[in-house]
Amino acid sequence: MVESARERVAELIGASPSEVVFTSSGTEANNLAIKGYALANRRRGRHIVTTAVEHYSVLHPLQSLAREGFSVTRVGVDEHGCVKLEELENAVTGETVLISVQHVNHEVGTVQEIERVAEIAESRGVALHCDGTCGGGILPVNVEELGVDMYSLSAHRFYGPKGAGALYIARGTRVLPLIEGGTQEQGYRAGTENVPAIAGFGRAAELAKAEMEQRLEKLWKLRRSFLRELEGRAEFRLNGHPERVNPVYASVSFPGISGDALVSELTGMGVHASTGSPCMAQAAKLSHVLEAMGLEQELVRGTVLFSFGIFTSLEEVHRAAEAAGAAVRRLRGEEQGEG
Amino acid sequence: MVESARERVAELIGASPSEVVFTSSGTEANNLAIKGYALANRRRGRHIVTTAVEHYSVLHPLQSLAREGFSVTRVGVDEHGCVKLEELENAVTGETVLISVQHVNHEVGTVQEIERVAEIAESRGVALHCDGTCGGGILPVNVEELGVDMYSLSAHRFYGPKGAGALYIARGTRVLPLIEGGTQEQGYRAGTENVPAIAGFGRAAELAKAEMEQRLEKLWKLRRSFLRELEGRAEFRLNGHPERVNPVYASVSFPGISGDALVSELTGMGVHASTGSPCMAQAAKLSHVLEAMGLEQELVRGTVLFSFGIFTSLEEVHRAAEAAGAAVRRLRGEEQGEG
Repeated sequence: MVESARERVAELIGASPSEVVFTSSGTEANNLAIKGYALANRRRGRHIVTTAVEHYSVLHPLQSLAREGFSVTRVGVDEHGCVKLEELENAVTGETVLISVQHVNHEVGTVQEIERVAEIAESRGVALHCDGTCGGGILPVNVEELGVDMYSLSAHRFYGPKGAGALYIARGTRVLPLIEGGTQEQGYRAGTENVPAIAGFGRAAELAKAEMEQRLEKLWKLRRSFLRELEGRAEFRLNGHPERVNPVYASVSFPGISGDALVSELTGMGVHASTGSPCMAQAAKLSHVLEAMGLEQELVRGTVLFSFGIFTSLEEVHRAAEAAGAAVRRLRGEEQGEG
Repeated sequence: MVESARERVAELIGASPSEVVFTSSGTEANNLAIKGYALANRRRGRHIVTTAVEHYSVLHPLQSLAREGFSVTRVGVDEHGCVKLEELENAVTGETVLISVQHVNHEVGTVQEIERVAEIAESRGVALHCDGTCGGGILPVNVEELGVDMYSLSAHRFYGPKGAGALYIARGTRVLPLIEGGTQEQGYRAGTENVPAIAGFGRAAELAKAEMEQRLEKLWKLRRSFLRELEGRAEFRLNGHPERVNPVYASVSFPGISGDALVSELTGMGVHASTGSPCMAQAAKLSHVLEAMGLEQELVRGTVLFSFGIFTSLEEVHRAAEAAGAAVRRLRGEEQGEG
């Protein structure tokens, strides 16, 4: 079952099964890629280039490496959250061993130009890791066409089970294991395999590949409807790139109100949205992604992330837009009353 | 569900829920304990004491630390696989920060005298990690009474699901995370929680605690019957301590035959046994555990691990002993015929 799942996951992203290492999560895949590659290749150099808008499962391992003598450059993004490619190219030095750029931003859905990042990486002889946890399984991915050396996946992001992730490691890429012991996963990741989660991951990958076109069409339709209906009801700014975006995400900033207050209003109305990244819900920090995009504090504060799934209906999207419009009007009234 | 499972796992080992960190496996728990503790405390010293009979999920992380400037002393065991306590005490130096000793040996089932190891650790001001993956959930465990600072568990070793492990980290013990990112598991272990596996772990812990006495009684009965019935049928040496042993395990050495040949004969007869540790099945190396116990090469070669579970019947145990006796006689005949 594990090997059959590996074949399906490999097929989903255009890899060979032997290039797929199962992990327990997308977070673990990112940690394995970054720490595992850096430690395996540190004799060649100790500089890593990344972006200001990565997920914490990329940024925190990089901070750890910084304490181990690596230096890390975070490249900026434009107002849509797109990585500045010229800045990235200039950041690469003779000491650089790795570039890590996300495929899709986890807060605004912007799809990065990975092929162009890969050209830079290849021309400078530097390995490229791509955090694909918010894109893989939803958008078409071919690791060879993208030109990446490592690509992270998370199963539950596309209807697989929790507890399953994977790292694509292109043949010939040297990576040290984080979790050592037995000989599972070709030595890249020891521990008894989580067979049920891996099997579910395989099935999810198979379905994602087979249904990708219809799913994307539906997601685009839901997102367009939601935004169109919201337009008549409230003033907002839509974050992320206008076209190069994963349609699962709609990051919306409402000036003059608090995103936290809006999310709790919406919860009371049966609509589930979130402020920023769900992984950091407890941290209650301002989003580093929106800050890097240059959003004013007031807009950052008023940002809510709506997301759509293949099981969401047009009717639900309609109700969500209606609820959001009503809640925003109510909150604006209150804030003006207070002020 | 995750917090309810945490309470049950904590209860199983006499810990507080806040001292339980969920991981994806016992292997990950061992890696987190060893690498996480060593890296968090390296300013205090860079020497670690362990034993010659640990599982690879302890020994391999230690080898990695050795490449990072740590030194590691492996203490020997006696003919029963019991750690030599005087040798262990003498191995501790002013540079020692951590002692790691397994609770139950994974190949012969010997239960180590953890309380006495803990006395040594405490008197020298050194932290103690105990790999409890082959004991926890089967034998009674109270981490306070044992006197350990860290204790690893694996859910599927006591009828929980694969994909779930835990590390007990006593309050005040400094450990750095291996997998970094979000704020899950109090920052000790990032990544979306594997809720179904954790929930199953909690239920398995609850049942293990409630049924421990009856289960152990049954396991002892199965083991005794098996060995008694085998005695009349073949010449063998029983490995491990005669009394201080986890009754799940019966490691048996048959002089003059190959354990691999015996296992494949038995498989053909519907009896599943293994040579050495299942994690290393592909490695086909001689067991470092049996070597450390001083077994002659011939006996190491002829060793098979039988194991018993709470769903095993006396009838099955009877058939297994019969099959083993017949297979051993057949193989001895062949080897003598060859010779």
